[in-house]
Amino acid sequence: MIAGSKPVNLTPPASSGESTGRKKHLLDFQDWSVADIHALFDTTDVMAQVLERTIKRVPALQGFTVGTLFFENSTRTRLSFERAARAQSADVLSFAAGASSLSKGESMKDTLRTIDQMQSDVYVVRHVAAGVPYQLTKWTDASIINAGDGRRAHPTQALLDAYTFKKNFANFDHFEGKRLAIVGDVMHSRVARSNIELWTLLGGEVTLCGPATLLPRELEQFDKVTLTHNVYEAAEGAHAVMALRLQNERMTSGLLPSIAEYQERYQVTEKVMAEAHPDALVMHPGPMNRDVEIAGDLADSERSVIEKQVASGVPIRMAVLYTLLVGKK
Amino acid sequence: MIAGSKPVNLTPPASSGESTGRKKHLLDFQDWSVADIHALFDTTDVMAQVLERTIKRVPALQGFTVGTLFFENSTRTRLSFERAARAQSADVLSFAAGASSLSKGESMKDTLRTIDQMQSDVYVVRHVAAGVPYQLTKWTDASIINAGDGRRAHPTQALLDAYTFKKNFANFDHFEGKRLAIVGDVMHSRVARSNIELWTLLGGEVTLCGPATLLPRELEQFDKVTLTHNVYEAAEGAHAVMALRLQNERMTSGLLPSIAEYQERYQVTEKVMAEAHPDALVMHPGPMNRDVEIAGDLADSERSVIEKQVASGVPIRMAVLYTLLVGKK
Amino acid sequence: MIAGSKPVNLTPPASSGESTGRKKHLLDFQDWSVADIHALFDTTDVMAQVLERTIKRVPALQGFTVGTLFFENSTRTRLSFERAARAQSADVLSFAAGASSLSKGESMKDTLRTIDQMQSDVYVVRHVAAGVPYQLTKWTDASIINAGDGRRAHPTQALLDAYTFKKNFANFDHFEGKRLAIVGDVMHSRVARSNIELWTLLGGEVTLCGPATLLPRELEQFDKVTLTHNVYEAAEGAHAVMALRLQNERMTSGLLPSIAEYQERYQVTEKVMAEAHPDALVMHPGPMNRDVEIAGDLADSERSVIEKQVASGVPIRMAVLYTLLVGKK
Repeated sequence: MIAGSKPVNLTPPASSGESTGRKKHLLDFQDWSVADIHALFDTTDVMAQVLERTIKRVPALQGFTVGTLFFENSTRTRLSFERAARAQSADVLSFAAGASSLSKGESMKDTLRTIDQMQSDVYVVRHVAAGVPYQLTKWTDASIINAGDGRRAHPTQALLDAYTFKKNFANFDHFEGKRLAIVGDVMHSRVARSNIELWTLLGGEVTLCGPATLLPRELEQFDKVTLTHNVYEAAEGAHAVMALRLQNERMTSGLLPSIAEYQERYQVTEKVMAEAHPDALVMHPGPMNRDVEIAGDLADSERSVIEKQVASGVPIRMAVLYTLLVGKK
Repeated sequence: MIAGSKPVNLTPPASSGESTGRKKHLLDFQDWSVADIHALFDTTDVMAQVLERTIKRVPALQGFTVGTLFFENSTRTRLSFERAARAQSADVLSFAAGASSLSKGESMKDTLRTIDQMQSDVYVVRHVAAGVPYQLTKWTDASIINAGDGRRAHPTQALLDAYTFKKNFANFDHFEGKRLAIVGDVMHSRVARSNIELWTLLGGEVTLCGPATLLPRELEQFDKVTLTHNVYEAAEGAHAVMALRLQNERMTSGLLPSIAEYQERYQVTEKVMAEAHPDALVMHPGPMNRDVEIAGDLADSERSVIEKQVASGVPIRMAVLYTLLVGKK
Repeated sequence: MIAGSKPVNLTPPASSGESTGRKKHLLDFQDWSVADIHALFDTTDVMAQVLERTIKRVPALQGFTVGTLFFENSTRTRLSFERAARAQSADVLSFAAGASSLSKGESMKDTLRTIDQMQSDVYVVRHVAAGVPYQLTKWTDASIINAGDGRRAHPTQALLDAYTFKKNFANFDHFEGKRLAIVGDVMHSRVARSNIELWTLLGGEVTLCGPATLLPRELEQFDKVTLTHNVYEAAEGAHAVMALRLQNERMTSGLLPSIAEYQERYQVTEKVMAEAHPDALVMHPGPMNRDVEIAGDLADSERSVIEKQVASGVPIRMAVLYTLLVGKK
């Protein structure tokens, strides 16, 4: 820890052993308990089995409509949700970024109220501004799933990361005492923030690592979170090491001395992993810049569960849709 | 009335009390009778009930394919039709603007004949040029629904406006003697033209209001239509007042003295509504420029049925699809 | 033949009378036998009947997912495959060109592995580079259908051309001795290459015709293929004459003396067709430049089966999807 840590209330104390009741939205994990998360993981197991069948479809959500509202473009995440909806026989309506009349001067509220008349049961929302998904819950009776808001949260990514760890770490028993090292551009990463929130909720610890310009010091305050600028220190004893994508615009932004120096100091490599727990897993939320933030060989190695992370995307999202919608029937 | 009115043949004399037979297309209301419209409104009631169920889907159009052919972009209208199709279990094929090979020098006819080989049962067509939907009826056996052609017509918008009025005006009995005031850029509005056509067909009266540059004098000839440049005069005794969207390009076109003057003279406000019938409804076809053509407060007031107009979009379009297609079975 | 011909190994010797076993991919016709093609045509007959019913849908591929991966845009071909999928009750996921994270620096392999986690059963792939569909077969367990790779192949177009010929040529018995003349920009045409491959596999002969700059001499080596620069010579005795689209960029490329001269020397006209077999059919893979590479009148004449080619697109693609997928059940 660079500086003293103190608990913050990002996650309110939830009764870990009990569900906190039926969920309507997934914005972040603030009103999700440990029991809720594990129940969702159990549902994910079932969904993963469905996807192993020849006929990868169940009628669980027949007659429901899932609206995707991507104000910020991300075809991959959108299609993952669409696949998750259709595998449960739900209908999908896709509202693309330019689709809204926002560009015509209409207010966000009027836009949503108009879209909402098409009667989706849930909206999957991505927006460049933090807080938009929460705001939308005020204006619709439908459920809202946050598919990424600004730098704030991307909860389904954190869920699939934790689920992948749970299913692949040797002799996994529980998250208590397990440590996740996150390396790279923590500053701009909603994936990092959601992973901090979920991993610590589940009882684990998180080490954040990156150059000073990309490592926000306010995260030091968070309980069970440590910060370091040294990647070997971050990896030491870690049960999983996750490299974050270094976005192209960052590389030329002046926030970094040079790509060569970044690679030298922060690239996750076999040598870095040698410091970690013997069974430690290598993770990456994708898409990768091979040999920038992660060594290409390591990404393809036995330790890597990167493809398994991606593979968990559809079943996790199936479980989220099912969990939020099925109580409405 | 600014000048003398005389009847025009926009709407041929239809036997108001009887259906004029099964309809294949919806281009405008020229071969629709009053009885046909009311039958469609009855079907809309049923569709609205379907959309209130938890499972918002009926198998009515299973095995039918609805093609959307939007040469002019309008995601909102297109998705409303897609929702209407899917809620009845029809398949949807979306042919986007750039989708056609028109840009490669192919003729409109060859484009349609090619698209038509994908065997849609109905095409929902929007085009910047008036008359294109009619022309397409010559080249395909499928049904054609006009989703907006130039400044000429947008019949499903007029249907949902009239339906919304019928369902929400206090103690509604019939359209005879009911007066609709339409305020704003009538010149460029297909919504205005379709509302004139439908409202007068149903027995109502229409007052058009706007600055001289945006109020086409040839509409004076139309039976039961009056024109005025004074918004208070337009609203006087009206049973519904509809503000039309003032498009951004119009604001800087030189057709208007200034936005401030437009707001001062033509904005639909509480003060304007004070002249209207005590039960008068406020309408807007969307998307709104709040506090330009309509006061934001008024749009959110008790009198406003703007959200109900939007809510009528899907059930009206379900009823139109059903009415045109189901006789083919 | 301009120069001596010799057999090439584009098509390996297949046992014409027997199937070469269940097919997983359709990349070109290298491991398809004559019996396989005719079995596919028989399946196409069944699919064409399905499309003549009021309810144009069968449950044959229910629970399967068809992914479309168009790195090069072609809405028409993509929608034809989507229609073919949905008419058999399969789900569709569309990965558009810009959809991939390729533009973010991710490798093609990582992109496919990510997309592949959405568990499509088959990918329909178009790419500007020859060989990409083949390469993708190395990275996924799903089936791959080549929907056009560079100038190399476009097998479903060739299938629908041959199928159209078979169904429409007067008293058709077999392809042996039937001659197809292909006129125009052979150089840049994957349609031409796939037609050469399929037509000669089926036992027919092909004459290629075009200006020297657009007629690649290496095709002379191919067995049962002849080349000529004279359109009348090409048409002489031919059983079908196919005009290829002259792309706009070609017209101004300097590869052609002038459009007027091209029209004069290579346009397929009634006068050209007078040299052909009395029952000869006129074909075009679309979209047409009327009165450039083909006379508009001829395209609309009795001899023309251009609309029938387009009409064969959906049933051929239904048959291809069915043939590749149904054995997996």
